Formats: sequence, structure tokens, C-alpha cells
Amino acid sequence: MEQSIIAKDELQWNSPVEAPFQISGFAWWSKEQKFRRLPVVEPGAIRQELDDLADNTSGGQIRFQTNATKLVIKVKLFGPNTAEHITGTAVNGFDCYLGKPGSQLYYGTTRFPHDSDQYEYVFFEALEAEMRCITLNFPLCQGVHEVLIGLNEDANIFNFPAYATDQRIVLYGTSITQGGCASRPGMSYTNILSRRFDLEFINLGFSGNGKGDPEIAEMINEIADPSCIVVDYDANNPHIDDLIRTMPEFIRILRSRNTEVPILVLSRIPYSFEHANTSAYEDRIARRNYQSELVKELQAKGDSMIYFHDGAELFGEIWNDCTVDGIHPTDLGFMQIANGLTPILKDILKLLG
Amino acid sequence: MEQSIIAKDELQWNSPVEAPFQISGFAWWSKEQKFRRLPVVEPGAIRQELDDLADNTSGGQIRFQTNATKLVIKVKLFGPNTAEHITGTAVNGFDCYLGKPGSQLYYGTTRFPHDSDQYEYVFFEALEAEMRCITLNFPLCQGVHEVLIGLNEDANIFNFPAYATDQRIVLYGTSITQGGCASRPGMSYTNILSRRFDLEFINLGFSGNGKGDPEIAEMINEIADPSCIVVDYDANNPHIDDLIRTMPEFIRILRSRNTEVPILVLSRIPYSFEHANTSAYEDRIARRNYQSELVKELQAKGDSMIYFHDGAELFGEIWNDCTVDGIHPTDLGFMQIANGLTPILKDILKLLG
Repeated sequence: MEQSIIAKDELQWNSPVEAPFQISGFAWWSKEQKFRRLPVVEPGAIRQELDDLADNTSGGQIRFQTNATKLVIKVKLFGPNTAEHITGTAVNGFDCYLGKPGSQLYYGTTRFPHDSDQYEYVFFEALEAEMRCITLNFPLCQGVHEVLIGLNEDANIFNFPAYATDQRIVLYGTSITQGGCASRPGMSYTNILSRRFDLEFINLGFSGNGKGDPEIAEMINEIADPSCIVVDYDANNPHIDDLIRTMPEFIRILRSRNTEVPILVLSRIPYSFEHANTSAYEDRIARRNYQSELVKELQAKGDSMIYFHDGAELFGEIWNDCTVDGIHPTDLGFMQIANGLTPILKDILKLLG
Repeated sequence: MEQSIIAKDELQWNSPVEAPFQISGFAWWSKEQKFRRLPVVEPGAIRQELDDLADNTSGGQIRFQTNATKLVIKVKLFGPNTAEHITGTAVNGFDCYLGKPGSQLYYGTTRFPHDSDQYEYVFFEALEAEMRCITLNFPLCQGVHEVLIGLNEDANIFNFPAYATDQRIVLYGTSITQGGCASRPGMSYTNILSRRFDLEFINLGFSGNGKGDPEIAEMINEIADPSCIVVDYDANNPHIDDLIRTMPEFIRILRSRNTEVPILVLSRIPYSFEHANTSAYEDRIARRNYQSELVKELQAKGDSMIYFHDGAELFGEIWNDCTVDGIHPTDLGFMQIANGLTPILKDILKLLG
């Protein structure tokens, strides 16, 4: 009797870096097999902050099909959460979605002691043994040393169905792009959109460091088959002059290789305190106007595949409620951003046929 | 020169427990002057968990008018945040709203080291010296030993305008009622509604402990002039039998004093994993049906002021996206709850004329 109980509880532990598991969202994955958002570089090749933030796993996904009745995850992280305005579940957690690609539903989030840098969590353990497509979203603001997936011993594992297309959407930007401050990984706007469009979204948001570094534009040019590149780094530039100095060159580099790829320039979202702080408001409008004019100028020069959208319109009427600290969207803000970008990206992708 | 810089930075420190500051949201405030949601009781008078959770300051507000150009807050808490699925800014933070009562806008949230149990934070320091109505929302899931409000030395302080009516809405329930897991205090559903209705909302949500204790019903009966009592404690009952055992008595006690006060019974919100977990779904439906039937029965017996609403309808079509962990709403979920309850409470308050 005791033996059979032990047998029942035994798990098969799998590394998701091996087939039939699929890792997506890391553009250099197939080349380097690292949970990392940029290629490994020589020291000094990019700013140290970018090198460090590249290890934050935002946008990474583990995808597989299984008839498992039990699903467990074991995770070793670079460190515990030390932020007060974003949850541990967002910084260090994984969340789990089930169901048909394009309409997957949220199932659960890892729970763990708030100050831990590793954990084991049972997503489920008594589901019916039917085949399910599963997506596990990587932590948004942390590095991941190791992930293991535990399933009941007799569970089978299969490939996740391929994305709707082989092309990917690349987003370059700030902490907001990276997913700060969603409550859990699946609620960053890039993960919401990846789920909704059934497409790979490459998240290149670098908290505090979306400064238009030309090295990042060069790296984006290494990414195969982008269907759209979103340039969303307004908010990390202390002064509009920083934008004016970097953005034309950033776009020029992207265009030097991606001659026919749609580029969407997105100005920053409104800060919640702008209603009482006119200089913050005026600064945003000046930045918006600059970016809008730059895109018009490039269009006038013959670039028919570059677009601009005012980030302030994404939040809509409830703009003031959308952030945790005046700057970083919550799940409410990210849902507004995703909803606002959906028709825009649909139109852009339609152009590609 | 140095002297004038020091003089410019000097602050007047005020205790918000003294007029013209107003403390609202604590039903026993005028009697006991404690940042506490229940009266102080003898040991054993209520369960220890409730006694402890009563010190969590959810729903408390500091209200005043000032022409200050600088606003600082100094806070001493019972402890640091130790939860991984809710932010420090929600557990331990204050947030700040400005503007006309009924349409106040969010301005900012305290920031502090994630593991600290006290902090000082500058909400603003260079605003125009014009008169503003200010609301500071207390932390959702922590006790507060002391709060001090710092203003520039020459700022004036006045009363906040009185609420739209002297009556208050009382909400009894669970961690969800208490505000878990909003990103900051102003985004709990009771604080959203308090802002929107310009009414005092008394938050009696007790994390994990909304178990229909008759002692709490007796205490609710001590609260003067309730315009509505919301009974929202379904989710903290391990089994439907716990509801069946406690709810008729809980309502009977409320009615024994509040003979003409509208009572709104709210069944629990859907859990995000119900799509794959039929027993969780069926359990929710059984609880919903029980509560709906109980209200019908009481109506049939002549209680014309008791109402039922299905909590699942509050989330609407986006129900699956609304939580951080399958159970606790994020700002997205709380906004849905507030939006769903707004017309219901409006109708109820209209009945009162």
C-alpha cells in the first residue's frame, strides 16, 4: 500500500530546453540556448546595465502539450525580489496558461516565500488526463538559472502547435515594455499580445535603459523574420534632446537591414500626475510631437512602412487609474495598452498579407 | 545664503488625527481614535485573527485641503511586507489623490525600501500654491503606528468638504473585500467606490477570515447610519455548509437592528482556474444558488430591502484575466468589480431617496 502511494507521487522531471518542449521569446535561443534576451557579448560591447538586464527573462515562454494530471515547476533564480512596487510573482514568478493557441486561458501563478531565490510549485495535481496545450511565461524582471518541469510519471509530452506564422514582432523599449508593473508575467502587454495574436513577441524592454543605444539596433538587425519592430523607448530619456539625438540614428540602423519591415514608433504613456504637473504634461506633448514629426519626415522621404502612434491614446479615458506609481502600468494599464495596440498591429500585419 | 536654503526646506509636521485633518473609513474613529477597523475588545471576545486583522488599515483615509507646494508623509508600520503576490505599495503604502470630491485624480504612491517598516516620502514639492482637496489612502494589509504629514511652513490647512451624505456603506468580507491584491490602496474596490460616490465606505474585509462570525455582525450593528451593508464573505468558507451554517444568522443579527437598511449579498467572483477545474466551478455555482435562494426566501418572508448579486457577473467577459493568482483580483479585477457594483449601489441608494 505504501509503495503504491509513493509510486503515484513520483514525477518525471524534464528540462524544457529539450524537445518536445519549445522555448520561445528569446531571439538568440536557437543559436545560444540561453535564457537571455540579447546575444552573449564581450565585456564593454554594450552598457553593463543592458548586459545585466538582458538576463531578465521577460517575454520568454515554455510551450508544450501534455496529458499530465500533475504539473510542477522547479526554478532557480538570480536573486529574490527586492522591489516594493512590483510583486514577487511578476519579478520572479512563472504563470501558466492552458488551451487552444490564440485563446489560451490563465490557470495559475507560482507562489513562494517572498524572499526566496528558488522554489518548487505545483500548478495542478488532479486534472483530467486529457491533452492540453500549455504555456508557462518566464519571470519579467529576473534572471533564471534553471527550470525543470515535473509531470506525473505516465504523462506524455508533445510539441506545442507552431505559431500562426514564423515571423515575430520585436519590441524595443523601457521598464514599461519589459512588463513593469504587471502582477504576473502573462499580464505584460507583450505577453497579452503574444497570446492574443498567437505570435512570438520578442521583448527588448530594458528597465531604465531604453536609451536608443545603436548597439541594440544592430542586435535587432540580427533577428530573423521580424513582421514588425515597435520602438517604444521615449520614457527612459531624461530630456527630449536625448530622443532627438538617438532616434533618427536608431531607426536608420533598423532600416539599413530591415528595409521593408513595418516600424511602429510609440510615444510614452501619460504619467498619472500630469493633471497637477503641467511641465510633465508639456514635456510629454513635446516628445510626442517630435516623434510624430520624425515619422512624417521619414514618410515624406519615401519610407512607406514607418508608423507613429500616440501612447497616451492607449490608456483612453481611464488613463489616470492605470499605474501603480504614476509611471508603471498595472494589469489594468497593460490591458488597455494591449487593447489599444491590437487593431494597430492587426492593420500592420494585414499589410504584410 | 545657506540659511535661506535651510529655511526654504523647513516643514511643518502635522498629526492627521487632529483637525482640520479628517480621518475617515474607521467606523470607531470618533469614539476611540485608533487606526483600526473594529473596536478594541477584551482578549477572546473575537477570534485572534480578526483582532489582528482589525489593525490592517484598509479603507482608512486622511482628508484635508491645503495650498501646500510640498507634501511629505512619514509612516511607522507594524512590519514590512512579506507577501510575494501583493506589492509593498499596497500592503504598506499610502497613495495620494487630488481634486474635487467625487472626481479626485490619482497623483502618486509612497516608495520605500521593500523590507522597511517605516518610511518618509515626498509626494510633491514644487506644485503651484493653490488650494487642493487631498485624500491619502491608508495601507491595505498592515497596521499603522503613526502617520505625520509634512507641509511647507507657510502652507494653510483646511477641512475637506463633507461627504455627499452622512451615511456610510459597510462592506463585510474576505481578503478580496480587504483589497488583496490591488497594486496600491486607492485601487481596492471599496476605495474606488468611495472616491466615485463621494461617500464613506467602511471596509470590514478580513483576509482568510470572512467566516460569518456573529460577533462581527453585532459590531456592524454599532455603526451609525449605514446606507447599505454588503455581505461578501462567500470565498472564505472552505465548504458551502459553512455558508449555510452562518449566513442566515449573520443576516438575522444585522436585521435585528438595521431593520430598514438595504443588505446586498454578493456571491464570490469566479476563480481563474475554473475552466479546467469543474469541481471549483460547480462549487461556486452551488454557493451562488444557495445565497440567491436564501435572499429570495427572506424576500418572500417580507424583507423588501435585501438583494442578491452574482459576483461572477462583476468580472464580465474578461473574468479570466482579472487575478494575480487565480483568486485575488488585480487593479484590473477591482476596476471591473467597482464598475459592476456602481449601478447596483446607485439603484440601492436611490431607493433611500
